[in-house]
Amino acid sequence: MKINGQAYRTIWLAQDGWRVCVIDQTRLPFRFETLTLGSTGQAAEAIRSMVVRGAPLIGATAAYGVALAMREDPSDAGLEAALALLGATRPTAVNLHWALSRMRARLIGLKARSRAQAAYAEAALLCDEDVALCRAIGEHGLTVISGIAARKPAGEPINILTHCNAGWLATVDWGTALAPIYMAHDAGIPVHVWVDETRPRNQGAALTAYELGGHGVPHTVISDNAGGHLMQHGQVDMVIVGTDRTTATGDVANKIGTYLKALAAHDNGVPFYVALPSPTIDWSLRDGLREIPIEERSSREVTHLSGLSETGEVEQVRVVAPGSNAANPAFDVTPARLVTGLITERGIAPASSEGLAKLFPDLAGAA
Amino acid sequence: MKINGQAYRTIWLAQDGWRVCVIDQTRLPFRFETLTLGSTGQAAEAIRSMVVRGAPLIGATAAYGVALAMREDPSDAGLEAALALLGATRPTAVNLHWALSRMRARLIGLKARSRAQAAYAEAALLCDEDVALCRAIGEHGLTVISGIAARKPAGEPINILTHCNAGWLATVDWGTALAPIYMAHDAGIPVHVWVDETRPRNQGAALTAYELGGHGVPHTVISDNAGGHLMQHGQVDMVIVGTDRTTATGDVANKIGTYLKALAAHDNGVPFYVALPSPTIDWSLRDGLREIPIEERSSREVTHLSGLSETGEVEQVRVVAPGSNAANPAFDVTPARLVTGLITERGIAPASSEGLAKLFPDLAGAA
Repeated sequence: MKINGQAYRTIWLAQDGWRVCVIDQTRLPFRFETLTLGSTGQAAEAIRSMVVRGAPLIGATAAYGVALAMREDPSDAGLEAALALLGATRPTAVNLHWALSRMRARLIGLKARSRAQAAYAEAALLCDEDVALCRAIGEHGLTVISGIAARKPAGEPINILTHCNAGWLATVDWGTALAPIYMAHDAGIPVHVWVDETRPRNQGAALTAYELGGHGVPHTVISDNAGGHLMQHGQVDMVIVGTDRTTATGDVANKIGTYLKALAAHDNGVPFYVALPSPTIDWSLRDGLREIPIEERSSREVTHLSGLSETGEVEQVRVVAPGSNAANPAFDVTPARLVTGLITERGIAPASSEGLAKLFPDLAGAA
Repeated sequence: MKINGQAYRTIWLAQDGWRVCVIDQTRLPFRFETLTLGSTGQAAEAIRSMVVRGAPLIGATAAYGVALAMREDPSDAGLEAALALLGATRPTAVNLHWALSRMRARLIGLKARSRAQAAYAEAALLCDEDVALCRAIGEHGLTVISGIAARKPAGEPINILTHCNAGWLATVDWGTALAPIYMAHDAGIPVHVWVDETRPRNQGAALTAYELGGHGVPHTVISDNAGGHLMQHGQVDMVIVGTDRTTATGDVANKIGTYLKALAAHDNGVPFYVALPSPTIDWSLRDGLREIPIEERSSREVTHLSGLSETGEVEQVRVVAPGSNAANPAFDVTPARLVTGLITERGIAPASSEGLAKLFPDLAGAA
């Protein structure tokens, strides 16, 4: 997608043909800066520190992290060490492990001297596939938005609420939850997005608002507390969110607070959709609430936050009373019973074992 | 309650015997400063700008605002002008109008020259009554906490989630939702409070954490998004919140986001209590969702926030992407069906017309 009129992906190769460039998403929306990753350690640190974030982009960065390792040490030991290092960066997103498993499967049977080139090719393929998956999700999700538009008076905007950032910045391009919105906007369907701020890291206020603004999509930022009230008053036509891990039964782990919006949508008869590429499905899990590990992040993300000062500097301020501590679970699980449908690259599935197995018989059977 | 070992109320008369002192709550938790109000206009501005906030304290400040007016112009016209000015400051809290009606009823039949003295006496009485109401709420709420404690293994903390600030800073003293917690803590029952940050104005992170810390009550600040996840995992034994207006049928208007916590409590079988003095009940209303006006506050409260910088200054930073706008509904309505009980000064009522009428036959019948 475009930033200041220039087309970007979130991850690409540097001019030298081997280092890996990413947008430093911890600096957005106030600074647009790119970082060049020259080692597996730097790739792992970029994931851990959330320079890159979003399940699909984490997977893509990890794939290139393996490629960087294969330049340094393409031995079996070098490969396993890189997989272990990258695999330990974030616990909730399953794409990370999916991408690493895929890289291992591609490389383990090759001679060491062939591995670097094959790893770069596989990482590039994985990125291109992610773009294709997101485009397909956008097209399927567009049918839902078109359906709602057909039932509203012509010209009235479709109000869509989203939580966190599942836009193109969370993927290689297009996004998951935002892909249908971009496609609807481009097709001339009037959409307006309620953007949940998404505390504590403010990915909504910072990233989703930034990318929707960049593409010209009308949107309004709200506190995470406001969505239920808007739904009670008929101001939300649908909810679309992304997911970091989905069980084979349709339970959805996504950014903390998603569950609360799903409850409110259910209580008010608002359709609640989750957009996901199939690598986000963990076919081995059946009970999201018990089985998906939830990352506990630093309390400082709650007690402090960054913003733009009146003098134009990005500054960090403490917002919690001095002496008080904070807890910071980063994800929650929305049970399948609260999900209207899963928008995947193959179409829209009911959030159930049967629904997912029908769309993905090849993958569901393999687990 | 105490700040740095010194006992305070939130509102008191200055040494001169006529000006009115309040704690500037917009400066907490990083600065403890008091303001002295010398005119009705200053009292109205203190309410509007949230120097004072919380339904009971708004009522108390409005009462003293009338007293200040009676020093300047005790005529009928002066009285009506003061009531109109103060009545227009905040739309949701019903205590404001309750307090103003009470002041009018007390003063309108008096000769002008008697009004100032009577107004000060009535405002002082109203404050003392508020303290007594809150103490009674605390005692009734304590029975709920004791009941939960009796069902848990000895010594295990009772985990109580609260939203916004309904502590002593929101009242004249003791608080509403926090009064039972203070009493449980003082009685040696181990309590731990999950403090919702409460965006956009952060009354939880700033005020509730500040006053719990000041009194030595164990607590942990969480983002507003986290409560549902904690309830899913059995980490919340009960929820207690305050309210700005309660209908005769038990619907509850409280700080935006309360409804989401009530939904999560209901979904997880967690008791959800609302603590309120009876002046918070609007006996004329039967449908909170349709009838309670919801204040829309400045979008700047969402786009910007204040905190303590690393150099020790209180600074305001922008957190929303430049160019993006925000909406800011300040309250939402929790339907009575989601409320386990209403903790009042006369005991605990089911959230229903019958429940409230049984406890308050004198007030319910008068509406």
